[in-house]
Amino acid sequence: MDKFEEKTLSSETIYEGKVISLRLEEVELPDGNRAKRELIQHPGAVALIPITNDGKIILVKQYRKSLNRSLIEIPAGRIEIGEDPKITALRELEEETGYGARKVTYIQSFATSPGFANEIIHLYLAEILYEVENPAAGDEDEFIELLEATIDEAEQMVATGEIYDAKTAFAVIYAKHQLK
Amino acid sequence: MDKFEEKTLSSETIYEGKVISLRLEEVELPDGNRAKRELIQHPGAVALIPITNDGKIILVKQYRKSLNRSLIEIPAGRIEIGEDPKITALRELEEETGYGARKVTYIQSFATSPGFANEIIHLYLAEILYEVENPAAGDEDEFIELLEATIDEAEQMVATGEIYDAKTAFAVIYAKHQLK
Repeated sequence: MDKFEEKTLSSETIYEGKVISLRLEEVELPDGNRAKRELIQHPGAVALIPITNDGKIILVKQYRKSLNRSLIEIPAGRIEIGEDPKITALRELEEETGYGARKVTYIQSFATSPGFANEIIHLYLAEILYEVENPAAGDEDEFIELLEATIDEAEQMVATGEIYDAKTAFAVIYAKHQLK
Repeated sequence: MDKFEEKTLSSETIYEGKVISLRLEEVELPDGNRAKRELIQHPGAVALIPITNDGKIILVKQYRKSLNRSLIEIPAGRIEIGEDPKITALRELEEETGYGARKVTYIQSFATSPGFANEIIHLYLAEILYEVENPAAGDEDEFIELLEATIDEAEQMVATGEIYDAKTAFAVIYAKHQLK
């Protein structure tokens, strides 16, 4: 049992969309008082660190309407219902970069915005890459530019703020210090 | 100009809450087609790496209703309207840990969930800590347990998944490798 558990007293679905849904809950706090929680449900996602055979990291640049700007990120995407996250990782790698990987290793998982959302990202390392002959197309509403950077260049992009995405910043520092 | 910019054609506010709001937008894609975007607005937050005078990192454990479990995180909190993020950082440090800091250094900022939300976290380093005599109380619906860990212990907690929060994982690896 969680010492500070918040028991749900009532739950109301405000919106159910293609990517996210929004629920309002009234909860009972550990001291018996009540509070409201605004909760976003998200299906979860994978992200991966694709390392080319000459040791570079592949990054994708894409427009993020949430921020009205482009971000440089590691490849990532939502898990389809029932999909094994490792399969999601391979699918997203192919769709976003045109590469396949002979070795995919689970690194770890994280909550991205636990203050209001249940999104979890499962992070993988993708190695021994090869070009897929006719790669599966990605989402038709997704426009992507590919970049390759050495780990040191990517680390520099984190330090300068050119990489402005939490999962990517973690991935780059992880690649720098935890991969040999 | 952003090459892949998505122009907003229409925008509808579905929900405006205490913490977040939800907007649906129809956008024009770079190829002239249209797509829908589900967008969460969030006021932005700060997070901080508080380093005690004997070199430990202070962590907070709190229940996250979004995930129906407790998470171990670095201290963090939402920016009040008009508030300087450095002030937010000091306020949250005091409310969540009872400490003040004589030295607060900006590290960097990140988008946490750019696929659907505009939340940005500004990360600070807090050093030369002292106990505040009568610390300001935090939010009345927030129940927090304090932990202290050496940087190596915290790094181990990231590796084992005991730390399951993206900003905290980044902060710990950053503290391990970028602070001397």
